[in-house]
Amino acid sequence: MAHSAAHERLAALSSHLARPTAPPPDWPGALAALEATFPAHQLSLDLATRQQHGQSWGSLLPPAPPAAVLHALATSDVVAVVRIATRFGIVLIPTGGRTALEGQFTPTRQAASGEVVLPRPTIHVSLSRMNRVLELHAQDFQAVVQPGVGWASLNAYLAERDGVKLFFPVDPAPGSEFGGMAGVAGSGTNAVGYGTLRAEWIQGMTVVLMDGSVIRTKGTNRARKSTTGFDTGRLFLGSEGTLGIITELTVRLAPSVPLKVALTSFPSVANAVTAVVDILGAGLTPTSLELLDGTSIRGLNLSKILPDELPEEPTVLMRFSNPSDEVNRASLETVAKIVERAGGRELRVAKNEQENDELWKARKSQYWSQQLLIGAGCRTLITDVCVPISRLAEFVARSEVLVQRSGLVAPIVAHIGDGNVHRAILWKGAEGETERPKEVEHLAKALVKLALELEGTCAGEHGIGLTKRKYLRAELGEGTVALMRTVKRALDPLNLLNPGKVLFPEGEEEWV
Amino acid sequence: MAHSAAHERLAALSSHLARPTAPPPDWPGALAALEATFPAHQLSLDLATRQQHGQSWGSLLPPAPPAAVLHALATSDVVAVVRIATRFGIVLIPTGGRTALEGQFTPTRQAASGEVVLPRPTIHVSLSRMNRVLELHAQDFQAVVQPGVGWASLNAYLAERDGVKLFFPVDPAPGSEFGGMAGVAGSGTNAVGYGTLRAEWIQGMTVVLMDGSVIRTKGTNRARKSTTGFDTGRLFLGSEGTLGIITELTVRLAPSVPLKVALTSFPSVANAVTAVVDILGAGLTPTSLELLDGTSIRGLNLSKILPDELPEEPTVLMRFSNPSDEVNRASLETVAKIVERAGGRELRVAKNEQENDELWKARKSQYWSQQLLIGAGCRTLITDVCVPISRLAEFVARSEVLVQRSGLVAPIVAHIGDGNVHRAILWKGAEGETERPKEVEHLAKALVKLALELEGTCAGEHGIGLTKRKYLRAELGEGTVALMRTVKRALDPLNLLNPGKVLFPEGEEEWV
Repeated sequence: MAHSAAHERLAALSSHLARPTAPPPDWPGALAALEATFPAHQLSLDLATRQQHGQSWGSLLPPAPPAAVLHALATSDVVAVVRIATRFGIVLIPTGGRTALEGQFTPTRQAASGEVVLPRPTIHVSLSRMNRVLELHAQDFQAVVQPGVGWASLNAYLAERDGVKLFFPVDPAPGSEFGGMAGVAGSGTNAVGYGTLRAEWIQGMTVVLMDGSVIRTKGTNRARKSTTGFDTGRLFLGSEGTLGIITELTVRLAPSVPLKVALTSFPSVANAVTAVVDILGAGLTPTSLELLDGTSIRGLNLSKILPDELPEEPTVLMRFSNPSDEVNRASLETVAKIVERAGGRELRVAKNEQENDELWKARKSQYWSQQLLIGAGCRTLITDVCVPISRLAEFVARSEVLVQRSGLVAPIVAHIGDGNVHRAILWKGAEGETERPKEVEHLAKALVKLALELEGTCAGEHGIGLTKRKYLRAELGEGTVALMRTVKRALDPLNLLNPGKVLFPEGEEEWV
Repeated sequence: MAHSAAHERLAALSSHLARPTAPPPDWPGALAALEATFPAHQLSLDLATRQQHGQSWGSLLPPAPPAAVLHALATSDVVAVVRIATRFGIVLIPTGGRTALEGQFTPTRQAASGEVVLPRPTIHVSLSRMNRVLELHAQDFQAVVQPGVGWASLNAYLAERDGVKLFFPVDPAPGSEFGGMAGVAGSGTNAVGYGTLRAEWIQGMTVVLMDGSVIRTKGTNRARKSTTGFDTGRLFLGSEGTLGIITELTVRLAPSVPLKVALTSFPSVANAVTAVVDILGAGLTPTSLELLDGTSIRGLNLSKILPDELPEEPTVLMRFSNPSDEVNRASLETVAKIVERAGGRELRVAKNEQENDELWKARKSQYWSQQLLIGAGCRTLITDVCVPISRLAEFVARSEVLVQRSGLVAPIVAHIGDGNVHRAILWKGAEGETERPKEVEHLAKALVKLALELEGTCAGEHGIGLTKRKYLRAELGEGTVALMRTVKRALDPLNLLNPGKVLFPEGEEEWV
């Protein structure tokens, strides 16, 4: 195949020769263009705002303030800043609610350097002020929103209107906004019932590409279904701001129906998994199936958030929503039998809406109540693996050994219906600490390795950002990573859009 | 911005210079390589098989037999034929159940020519013999299948096994196979309840790319959820065999639960839509909501498939599936009230499984019973637009005027819950006819234009292929089409994989 090899070399060579490169960065030029284009209230140059934007959630890296924060008010603003960035060689990072946990919006550091050095001047393009609900098509179960609208504020807006009650059912972090939600395309507590943001909840997007063009991924089309070739919109779901900047979204809504919360506990996680598989296999439709382990329940008991103490053992919290209370009751009668058969305690079912909220607090308060296990100065690293449900009990048992070996405390909150396990690794932080203790990093890495061994993923719903890049080759294989790089190059040939996120900068790979 | 314009011109020029081109076609060389690589039983060179593969469904183009049909038995066979194609400049077209309606697997003709001329020798890569279910993970509601497995045969396989009854709920054409199903990524009668193939039913794929690499889009990961950056798998859904060749799929399964079929009719489509929106708004979960118009019912009555005649007016056939018959009954009690309020006739509910099947025949027999409206020699063009539900009644009313003006008969079968309307345009075909009558083409085009005006799509579930390409610019906009072309070029730079499908060959665009 000498001919073919030569051909491949030639193709590689010509593609290398043709690869365009960004101009050398010219910050004074960029700043002058920004100031000539945008009024002062859209441009933050003060250190406080910049530092706030440079703050790294989750990764604990020291803050690296961007050179400016541009507050976009319209798609045309995003086009203008894209043109400035490509002309002056400036990096752009789109931001919104800034709830991402894996460093998705943190200015990218130069790799292999302990210092905080940004490879190029960086502008954070904040979309939070684009926060209007533009259209509501109740009959079509659709809304058109700007990227700065949060799912929680959309739901508040929808709750106030008359007529059929609709809501957006996918519930990632409370402060998250639709632009970033599409960017990570994760989920929340409702995924077992409603699917994730990678399902069909985001139907179309307006996206600004790095050549300055504005596309509408579904064009003029508001239909519930369409099959117009491969769906370019899907490309931006999970792209974490690396392929384009989303400036409008058409989202699907669900009807709001009566909820019922129930709770029980099991002698082991294996028993809980048996019950969950049987619940799903019976065709029952829980919207949430959440697991709290005995350690999490201990924190909860310390918090006294619930009126009574719960047994400190694997506990499953369920939420059912069906068109009527009768159907919820019938579903929970079946669930009670399944739980009994699986060795669980008697199912405790909320009697009314107030009890729904009360029981659900067991889940909602976890981030804070877990910290009581450590006390003042508690720091948290929330891990995010997901394994097939059939491997979940094994994952929990084997990860328990890893936790005990580490000497750390690491309670579990899991979306058990999806196999998505969050162990919160807790430690008492030192004053001014900017790096995590080594044993915390070791444990986090060991949990990912175990998940991959069990045919799971390093990132159930929080995405890749900076912190999970190292696992991508082991999980996806070289070919898929290479394809992702091909797509990135095709859409952002100058590598100025959130560079180094999801994929390592070329030549700086540090695979696990 | 003279600087920037020059920069853009330079980038365009260098990308043009660098674009690799396929070698001139060398069929004798390719054939020798095929014969040296594959045993005779995997290579069909006889005219009958080739003509069968060159047959154009739906588009009525004269057959254009490929030069050979290669029957792949393994991923490595596909890699081998990809290497032969790129070396000898041969076109590849992946095929499977060959149920696609828009010319997806038809050898691409040279444009602007009445004659049947293929731009390059073509090999059909048939994946139908790769028809094994490789793994079943019942606890995870997952199966791993080869691309030649059909959804119907997977469901037959699953029905025979013991334990929890599982099935694959998305039901396009009965003979369709998973490779092609992912390729078009359409749906069927169950989309209102279970979503389409663009939702999360296809979780991961093994794909052979045109550089000969084999990727696994989700890598080692069998988790129900994951967020490892943008999902390259989604790129192949709907790619209609233009970006890669799928050789394995991990699919999600659903639990099989009791079904109940019901039927009613309404004085107008507008009344039917009101009922449907109320059913969905109440949070009831029909798996199917199908509309047959009065003309379709007339054909049904002529067929005498049902024991009694139905009123020849807009009829909605519904299928509910819930964990128990009690829940189905409760749902249908609510539906009966909604139907009454919307002006429908009394809801007719199947009393048992036999009656379920009987009523469902009203839908299943449509392709044949509609033909009775014309009689012997009837030909059918099944159109496939989809509009927002809120515009459905307007679409039907205005399209009725178009039909009457055309003098043709064009009964409706619609997935009303999704707004997906199939008008079957019927005519009496002449002997040896290879082109459709002009008025048929005119009506089909007018229906698409009307759908686009009403914020709908030209392709609800049958894809683009050859026949819908002309509408893409009007529907998606130039920018989205340009992005699709960028992606196509990045993945198939030599343009040898099903060229001219979904996207026109460059320079041969004929937009509507």
